[in-house]
Amino acid sequence: MKLEMEKLIAHLKSQGFVFQGSEIYGGLANSWDYGPLGAELKSKLKKMWWDFFVKRNPYNIGLDTSIILNSNVWKASGHLGNFNDPLIDCKECKSRWRADKLIEEKFTDMNVGGWKNEELENFIKEKDIKCPKCGACNFTNIRQFALMFKTNQGVVEDEGSTVYLRPETAQGIFTQYKNSQRALRKKLPFGIGQIGKSFRNEITPGNFIFRTREFEQMELEFFFSPDDTTDWFEYWLEKVQQFLLEKVQLKKDNFILREHDKEELAHYAKRTVDIEFKFPFGTGELWGIAHRSDFDLKQHQEHSGQDLTYLDPATNQKYLANVIEPSVGVERLILAILCQSYKEEQLENGERIVMELPYALAPYSIAIMPLQKQQKEQAFNLFEDLLQEFDATFDETGNIGKRYRRQDAIGTPFCITIDFDTETDQSVTVRNRDTMEQERIKIEDLKDYLNNKLK
Amino acid sequence: MKLEMEKLIAHLKSQGFVFQGSEIYGGLANSWDYGPLGAELKSKLKKMWWDFFVKRNPYNIGLDTSIILNSNVWKASGHLGNFNDPLIDCKECKSRWRADKLIEEKFTDMNVGGWKNEELENFIKEKDIKCPKCGACNFTNIRQFALMFKTNQGVVEDEGSTVYLRPETAQGIFTQYKNSQRALRKKLPFGIGQIGKSFRNEITPGNFIFRTREFEQMELEFFFSPDDTTDWFEYWLEKVQQFLLEKVQLKKDNFILREHDKEELAHYAKRTVDIEFKFPFGTGELWGIAHRSDFDLKQHQEHSGQDLTYLDPATNQKYLANVIEPSVGVERLILAILCQSYKEEQLENGERIVMELPYALAPYSIAIMPLQKQQKEQAFNLFEDLLQEFDATFDETGNIGKRYRRQDAIGTPFCITIDFDTETDQSVTVRNRDTMEQERIKIEDLKDYLNNKLK
Repeated sequence: MKLEMEKLIAHLKSQGFVFQGSEIYGGLANSWDYGPLGAELKSKLKKMWWDFFVKRNPYNIGLDTSIILNSNVWKASGHLGNFNDPLIDCKECKSRWRADKLIEEKFTDMNVGGWKNEELENFIKEKDIKCPKCGACNFTNIRQFALMFKTNQGVVEDEGSTVYLRPETAQGIFTQYKNSQRALRKKLPFGIGQIGKSFRNEITPGNFIFRTREFEQMELEFFFSPDDTTDWFEYWLEKVQQFLLEKVQLKKDNFILREHDKEELAHYAKRTVDIEFKFPFGTGELWGIAHRSDFDLKQHQEHSGQDLTYLDPATNQKYLANVIEPSVGVERLILAILCQSYKEEQLENGERIVMELPYALAPYSIAIMPLQKQQKEQAFNLFEDLLQEFDATFDETGNIGKRYRRQDAIGTPFCITIDFDTETDQSVTVRNRDTMEQERIKIEDLKDYLNNKLK
Repeated sequence: MKLEMEKLIAHLKSQGFVFQGSEIYGGLANSWDYGPLGAELKSKLKKMWWDFFVKRNPYNIGLDTSIILNSNVWKASGHLGNFNDPLIDCKECKSRWRADKLIEEKFTDMNVGGWKNEELENFIKEKDIKCPKCGACNFTNIRQFALMFKTNQGVVEDEGSTVYLRPETAQGIFTQYKNSQRALRKKLPFGIGQIGKSFRNEITPGNFIFRTREFEQMELEFFFSPDDTTDWFEYWLEKVQQFLLEKVQLKKDNFILREHDKEELAHYAKRTVDIEFKFPFGTGELWGIAHRSDFDLKQHQEHSGQDLTYLDPATNQKYLANVIEPSVGVERLILAILCQSYKEEQLENGERIVMELPYALAPYSIAIMPLQKQQKEQAFNLFEDLLQEFDATFDETGNIGKRYRRQDAIGTPFCITIDFDTETDQSVTVRNRDTMEQERIKIEDLKDYLNNKLK
């Protein structure tokens, strides 16, 4: 059965995963806040990425650069000149659209990523693509719309004080590549990872948290010698899939690999593969793996006048490193996880919604519940003890069946119930989210039991 | 001996803790990036705060709201009207200054936080305070300078599309307080914590990372009934100090508590205490604990028209919660930790710089070193094994004494050396950063040994 997005969004709001941004003020277009459970899930996902791609990788290091950079960075990267959306206005109803999206939404198999403005305009006329609002086919020519958010820093508001919110975290890595390499005495090959907010003033954001103007990225730039014969592209394409399958536990059937053909490739890119997830609203890019050659370092070297080459200690030769970039948006990955996890199940005695989240990503690992009011103090003491080691919540309202449903609905793997017998047998009932089976466990064995199940 | 900031900054740059932002482009005023080691330290500090104030606290929950909010939020909070710096221009040399800072830098005991513009202007004239640049005392009147960064969202650049970068994370919490309380079925008292970037277009930023335009906050808003007789202000003031002393391990002598007097208090605040750290450049605010009464919720209730009251299930009464806000800047806390940790020591055979970081905050917990090239493979295998459990680095260049110095300089608690005998006795040498003592440890006991020392 196909998941309806409206159902998922309503569930996530009511349970405290995702709220509409600034909701009490009627919201703000395309803005979403992460509630207490979403914040926990997001934080766990980021830690999972950081551990896998940075901390537990013997070659890579991390970095944390600013959102606002010297504007020359964006001149060098090409964002100030080329980072635009092709916009057209409907002459009849005055509504504004992205020309490329108008085509791709009508012809869902097409990808017009590499097309020139003229090609887009002609195609729209030839195929008689209509304005989705008024139905006319009478558009202006395309004009380019800058995607970077602009602001001013300092006391005076003039051109000299204009700065931009970064549209990607990658350029922060390139600008500090040499400093990082030198300070840590790294030898090629090595990678630099970064997690952080980016901003794009998208003209057609949408599909819930799939495309938002404010979003978070997890990017790795892996640097290597142009003479290195290892296929680092294949290596990282493999690693990313390993992360998705083993850590995030996406099902293999839920995503596809899409190789960019020559027309679609950026002029500097040697190869690009998108990992696309099958969202309920269609297939969408989740993770891009790109071979960026030495394009970025070369641009920054030219624009900054700084020497960004690497002196190879083995050959005594100087060269610019090549780069493989695996780049993923945090919110998109969260959406993929949520879409895959949400299940409605028919039970013998009713139905339940269960979020089948990987244990490591569930906001709470365990919920502690007193069966009745009499066990509240005892249960709360156990909760406070377990909380020092496990991500735990305390749940005391409603009957026990209702509480199980509630924890299923937020993906808590184990519910621990303190009942009449606990005082006598020093044991509790542990109930499993997925099997719904219950086990009686001695309190003294509980931590080992949980550690074993959760790892 | 007093620490010189220039020395500390040079050390932090060369070791990869903090780089000048956009350095290859000549920098960007007041912008700093966190290098591989600084990024690790920052990430550990944020996790430490999140664990202590959110995850391991039985009453609190977390949240992750957007940087760009509906602009009505800032009307309600007062930031759009009142969040300004009092600026004056020197009529002689045209330089621009903050009037309050001019006074406080001349009279270091004074705090003019609550003064009106006229009072500031008169005081400057009376005391004949001079322009720091040209020495004249001939200033314009004060004009207020808005501290929020302004940008535009959407396709059209007009007033309706104006949005702001948040100057604090707190208002995100207030706007989602009701959603969070309802979704998690929280009962008062409870707190909501948040970590995230904030932006203030400060006219006089400075002192390295102490005051920057882009910075990160860790804020807790603790909500409670106005009838609650517990002194929650004292409770959180105590908790914050416990965190500083036990977790961050600041020395008690290095900070002071400063109670705001009535003139300094914001009009809505019932009590405010600043925890101030003794930085090398003077005492500066580290952590503010403020009793904000029901000011924020009341403002948002009035401006949004939404009911933000809490229905007390015990008394069946509706009321607005009161709030205690402990708020700290990540970078300031990092600066305090770095200032306290940096030591220059005279040894028998030379000198060393050692960063006496708390074990839990050191970028690397251990460094693995082959004594000579012959042990490199063996050492790297051990490194890869330990890396799955410990934050580890591999260090193979230079003689062993030089490598010890290098790890001291970045605060690594333990160095593990693989030498000639390792193959025979299956043991390694573990060297302690602080005592510089060495112990011979069996490889099979190594993980237990380290876990025991590091916890």
